[in-house]
Amino acid sequence: MLTLDKIYHANFVLKNVVRKTDLIPAPKINPECDVYLKTENLQVTGSFKVRGAYYKISQLSAEEKAKGVIACSAGNHAQGVALAAARNGIKSLICLPDGAPISKVEATKSYGADVCLVEGVYDDAYNKALELKEEKGYTFIHPFDDENVIAGQGTIGLEILDQLPEIDAVIVPVGGGGLISGVAFALKSLKPEIKVYGVQASGAASMVTSLEHGKIECLDSVATIADGIKVKEPGTNTFDICSKYVDKIVTVTDDEISSAILFLIEQQKLISEGAGAVSVAAAMFNKVPVKGKKVVCLVSGGNIDVTILSRVIKRGLLKSGRTDSINIELIDKPGQLRDVSRIIAELGGNVIAIHHERANEGADIIGCYLRIVLETRNFEHKMAIRQAISDAGFTIVE
Amino acid sequence: MLTLDKIYHANFVLKNVVRKTDLIPAPKINPECDVYLKTENLQVTGSFKVRGAYYKISQLSAEEKAKGVIACSAGNHAQGVALAAARNGIKSLICLPDGAPISKVEATKSYGADVCLVEGVYDDAYNKALELKEEKGYTFIHPFDDENVIAGQGTIGLEILDQLPEIDAVIVPVGGGGLISGVAFALKSLKPEIKVYGVQASGAASMVTSLEHGKIECLDSVATIADGIKVKEPGTNTFDICSKYVDKIVTVTDDEISSAILFLIEQQKLISEGAGAVSVAAAMFNKVPVKGKKVVCLVSGGNIDVTILSRVIKRGLLKSGRTDSINIELIDKPGQLRDVSRIIAELGGNVIAIHHERANEGADIIGCYLRIVLETRNFEHKMAIRQAISDAGFTIVE
Repeated sequence: MLTLDKIYHANFVLKNVVRKTDLIPAPKINPECDVYLKTENLQVTGSFKVRGAYYKISQLSAEEKAKGVIACSAGNHAQGVALAAARNGIKSLICLPDGAPISKVEATKSYGADVCLVEGVYDDAYNKALELKEEKGYTFIHPFDDENVIAGQGTIGLEILDQLPEIDAVIVPVGGGGLISGVAFALKSLKPEIKVYGVQASGAASMVTSLEHGKIECLDSVATIADGIKVKEPGTNTFDICSKYVDKIVTVTDDEISSAILFLIEQQKLISEGAGAVSVAAAMFNKVPVKGKKVVCLVSGGNIDVTILSRVIKRGLLKSGRTDSINIELIDKPGQLRDVSRIIAELGGNVIAIHHERANEGADIIGCYLRIVLETRNFEHKMAIRQAISDAGFTIVE
Repeated sequence: MLTLDKIYHANFVLKNVVRKTDLIPAPKINPECDVYLKTENLQVTGSFKVRGAYYKISQLSAEEKAKGVIACSAGNHAQGVALAAARNGIKSLICLPDGAPISKVEATKSYGADVCLVEGVYDDAYNKALELKEEKGYTFIHPFDDENVIAGQGTIGLEILDQLPEIDAVIVPVGGGGLISGVAFALKSLKPEIKVYGVQASGAASMVTSLEHGKIECLDSVATIADGIKVKEPGTNTFDICSKYVDKIVTVTDDEISSAILFLIEQQKLISEGAGAVSVAAAMFNKVPVKGKKVVCLVSGGNIDVTILSRVIKRGLLKSGRTDSINIELIDKPGQLRDVSRIIAELGGNVIAIHHERANEGADIIGCYLRIVLETRNFEHKMAIRQAISDAGFTIVE
């Protein structure tokens, strides 16, 4: 049984292990409310997961500790368990699918875990972990559906109340539901009038679907850039706690998540992963009723692959009018490139790439295409450059 | 005269205006020492500048306040002055060169300043500001060479000592020298054995040059991605204070700064601007003697243009073997692209762009070039793919 006592005990046990992450005002997220960020992306290991993993492991018996722990994860849970085990002085083995990004594997090893790469996908690694658990007597650390894990995550609720006692609402990312279960239980136990909202990615809305149907549902497939909350099925414990303590769970799209990630970079100087930014996306795009309220968005983690980050930024720049890609149909005669270049330069556009192709299928036999990628200041600037190019007699094609 | 009293007074005045930014452990920056980050990139306005600007403005006479203030800056100082003036309920006018990025202009306006765009470069904007100051009786807020501004920045020293009393050394970015003057004065006054190191960009080492020559030198030109510390000449006050209180000032290159920015993103989930990351670069690349010490790197700001950020990430990925760009000379016959694609796919490379060009000058008349940009896991992965392509009989050209 999850109790407030257990969460307070976890808070005590975690004292010298986790950071009490800062609560940072984010006034520009939504002009209609007063938003703060609980920055678990700045937590040790880059996510909140270390809280639950550490508390869980600390409560094992001496015999269990002697045998060690096992987990299956390619993400934040792996790093949390690895660090927690190392700090408790016990061995950990993490099963990962062999296609997991090298960076995740390296990070997990760097925190002191042994890594077992399993051929196949997540489910194969999971089955291998259960098999090894039986064979070797390891304790399996579930990523979310475990009372001690949930109690560990609940310590974030205590910290938020301490940092902002007058809080009206909290918005929490939801995958399997471990984080929101702990936070909602802590907050509602101490101050029942606080609203607790959850957010899932629209491509992995397993808790939303389960709550709607009043029973646990397993999704056939899940797809979202928020890989930390890409979960097919909620847990039994987490489903129960969410049913009782969570006011509402909403969804956000991948485009909304990308906008939130870019907002956090530009306005708050913070890197968050997709899963970590869904709470901010929900506040930005008015998915939950927070007008006039003091709201905490829990930014649950920051472990985003930098190649993904690079794509998110690129897409964000394009969508906000700060880069443009213009295709121009040219007559194949000298001086055309010069003329276009001059127009762009005069208007202050900064060319970053040019592709010039002759006589491909789309163009007339004597024509050719010029594709120019350039940095622009904003939508107006971008449209002014396009207009000037058209006015000079060039045809812009999409 | 700068006094410790004045810095304590500034600390009191700033209480409800600035954030006491978090001190965050950064264990992976340098394995030989114990590094912490003082995160002024998470300060209100995204940089420390608001501290000095606010304290300076708060100490103006009622008459001066009634007339308003003026400053010249395209960066953090502009935003600091704008916010500080608004909070003091007075008017501010910021002169910027008309080529300043729209994002900086918008940010400055958003904090409540009036903006005067001046045709030309920084010096033209500066002269215009002095002219308007004379004409209208505004008080000019100098970005660094002012005792009250320096006292405001010095409050960071007090916070660091409070957050980590056992600190051995602090590493501080240096442009005009206002930040390090305040911090060094505060720290050396309270605990003289603390080492205070400064860092400049090698392309703008005006304080380094001046200290070497024992007198203020004005550089002919400055060039660095760290635009926040791209300063041609130190101030009279800051030069004096640095001469007395700073142990050493070192330089870092733009490539080292880029690596530090990428490190902060990946390992610490923090966005810093070039100027903000020079302290981290100095610790990473052992520019200062910090082995075995407890060291605080002051990350002074996070206001980096996202297009610049995107380039820094791209360069970092290329340099760390996580993207590759391969040029292959093909015989112009069917099936070649298929063969190369298959090799890359089998080895797990992820193609993100392909350029295929026939019969350009460099290639044989029947040949063509294929340029493939792909995501790779690391250097070994990148080299394995290149090797496999060569082994299949293709010629890779640089």
